[in-house]
Amino acid sequence: MKAINLDYTAAAPVDEKVLQVMLPYFTEHYGNPSSGHSLGEKPREALEEARFEVGRLIGADKAAKSQIVFTASASEANNLAVKGIIAAGKRKGNRIITSAIEHFSILNQLKSLEKDGYEIVRLPVDGSGLIDPGQLEEAINDQTILVSIQAANPEIGTIQQVEKLAAIAREREIPFHTDAAAAAGWIPLDVEKMGVDMLSVAGDQFYGPKGSGALFVRRGVRLRPLIEGGIQEKGLRAGTENVPAIVGLGEAARLARESLEERSRKVAAFRDKLKESLFAVIPHLHLNGHPEKRLPRNLNVSVEFVEGEALLMRLNMAGIYVSSGSSCTSQALKSSHVLEATGLPPELAQGSLLFAPGLESREDDIPYITEQLSEVAKLLRNMSPLYHQYLKEGKNNANV
Amino acid sequence: MKAINLDYTAAAPVDEKVLQVMLPYFTEHYGNPSSGHSLGEKPREALEEARFEVGRLIGADKAAKSQIVFTASASEANNLAVKGIIAAGKRKGNRIITSAIEHFSILNQLKSLEKDGYEIVRLPVDGSGLIDPGQLEEAINDQTILVSIQAANPEIGTIQQVEKLAAIAREREIPFHTDAAAAAGWIPLDVEKMGVDMLSVAGDQFYGPKGSGALFVRRGVRLRPLIEGGIQEKGLRAGTENVPAIVGLGEAARLARESLEERSRKVAAFRDKLKESLFAVIPHLHLNGHPEKRLPRNLNVSVEFVEGEALLMRLNMAGIYVSSGSSCTSQALKSSHVLEATGLPPELAQGSLLFAPGLESREDDIPYITEQLSEVAKLLRNMSPLYHQYLKEGKNNANV
Repeated sequence: MKAINLDYTAAAPVDEKVLQVMLPYFTEHYGNPSSGHSLGEKPREALEEARFEVGRLIGADKAAKSQIVFTASASEANNLAVKGIIAAGKRKGNRIITSAIEHFSILNQLKSLEKDGYEIVRLPVDGSGLIDPGQLEEAINDQTILVSIQAANPEIGTIQQVEKLAAIAREREIPFHTDAAAAAGWIPLDVEKMGVDMLSVAGDQFYGPKGSGALFVRRGVRLRPLIEGGIQEKGLRAGTENVPAIVGLGEAARLARESLEERSRKVAAFRDKLKESLFAVIPHLHLNGHPEKRLPRNLNVSVEFVEGEALLMRLNMAGIYVSSGSSCTSQALKSSHVLEATGLPPELAQGSLLFAPGLESREDDIPYITEQLSEVAKLLRNMSPLYHQYLKEGKNNANV
Repeated sequence: MKAINLDYTAAAPVDEKVLQVMLPYFTEHYGNPSSGHSLGEKPREALEEARFEVGRLIGADKAAKSQIVFTASASEANNLAVKGIIAAGKRKGNRIITSAIEHFSILNQLKSLEKDGYEIVRLPVDGSGLIDPGQLEEAINDQTILVSIQAANPEIGTIQQVEKLAAIAREREIPFHTDAAAAAGWIPLDVEKMGVDMLSVAGDQFYGPKGSGALFVRRGVRLRPLIEGGIQEKGLRAGTENVPAIVGLGEAARLARESLEERSRKVAAFRDKLKESLFAVIPHLHLNGHPEKRLPRNLNVSVEFVEGEALLMRLNMAGIYVSSGSSCTSQALKSSHVLEATGLPPELAQGSLLFAPGLESREDDIPYITEQLSEVAKLLRNMSPLYHQYLKEGKNNANV
């Protein structure tokens, strides 16, 4: 049976080269980087090398080395950024500005902070998922203590104009955080050029291991750690460093940086051919997200008159693995807050499909994928009362 | 050259069997447990199997399965326990009771909470590191919202009477947390018998991978997550699960449970022979911690008239890797808060050595270790003005 993974944002295999670099740190160089004796030396060096490589991936130069804090995930990095800056309490105020389409590791902690009395402003997005910098300008007031806006959206792939957004915050000396979990490793990032104060990275989004992440913290930004205890990570994140995972993250960052353009071109080429093929064959298809400003490995479509979960299940039976969007809620069967924010009508939002190809995706699978989706969509469409009503009325009542 | 690791609490190699079980989850079964499609199935099953195995290690029966929350370290588990229960705010009050000899991942967050206005009571210990349950009884008042006392101390090995301590808290319906990072995998633990509400575990303390930990949470105990976001771990810890690490933790827990007695006997036998040998040959040696109620793999001694760091450095040159205590501060060259709390005079506390043997420790290394420590101690002692004063006065002015 076929097994075609088109859900690489949910999970990707660790690059074989990355795994090979990690292996000695499980059994041979297993020391604790904090140890004063010889067993700590090699792990300590490896840690700093990985820190350097993660820094390079996001344009943090050598001088910024010490500002990469290793975490166990981008979710942790996002929580450290937001809660850390608030708990440090350097700026007085209670307004936090974000966007309506952030990852849940931003939105859900802000929901909690809202209950604690903070005022959360969620900037809207346009139909393509873009935030208008003018809206940020208007939302900022003298009570604003943090702006957190993602570099790119994992679900619809829309790439924000972080440089413009961060400049607005910076002008008012308000710390700016960007969740770059979906972007890092796939589009060029440069913390200096972007002008961000904090940036989150997820290793498993670019063939590094699960359980690896990092937060870039600009020197001068004061954070209270989420995990307090030992003095690891310059006191910003306690606990024995997960050396194998960090080494893997570093190697994955190096490989991603060195082949960024080639990798992006490859997955974008697949994505574009898949898109072309699907739109040529399947009627009532709607593209979600921005037509150009989008991550190379992202294709998000809605199939009108079709219920998304049924679609996913049938594609799964055909050996095609896709998701309806955020992998963090895919089991919860909720409709996407991202698509909702772009103004997509609920009937289209519920029939959404996220195709996230990987480096392993093969173009000769595209005919099979197209054929299967076409058949399944036809089958489900024919079961839809709305579709029959549409046929009867003889007109297109959706914005396709 | 010799390379004898006697610092296994700082770091241990991952058990080869554990690593083999982990490997397929990096590249083959790499799916996201939250995925609705087939790629999520195997990882999801593996996750639940690991949860079951961790539960069994600490006596949580099948019914308690869902109360094991995977974290990236015991430090994180400790922070989730303490901050989580406080943020959930179920009980009203501001007193938190702990001991003076907790790990920094307890003590340092409590220091922060103290600044936030919480009243922290740090129970004293006796000369052997034991807490008197009567003191807990006295310290509890109606403002008490949490008691957190470790199962065993990683530095001096003292095993607390958690059962008695927890009963006191339970009688007053105050949640009781125990940091069992040093104890789990080495002494029998049973959350039911102990009567604890929360218990922290560290995978790397029993040959599991770094970056693996867990928090047992009794059903009914309400926590606010430290890392908010997706609905992983029943909403108690967001972020894609680190499947390989969790699988490794589960396998390490299984192996530890199955051979707990054998392993403990083995390291205790080595420890006892080492102790006997050292005390037979080296003068001015002082045993720290409890003579019997101690972890099997723990030997902590102080060498009078000798500065600990110099001792460590010279032993390191001889290929003997030991630490002075907490691996989290060993690079910080601070004197031990644990030894201080036992009332050890500073001149003895500064000359402390933690011998933490592992399953790989070989008894035929003991003569070499003894010989080296004897020589180094003699050398350093002869450089000590205090020692010469002691010789001149012709009397023993320390409690050896």
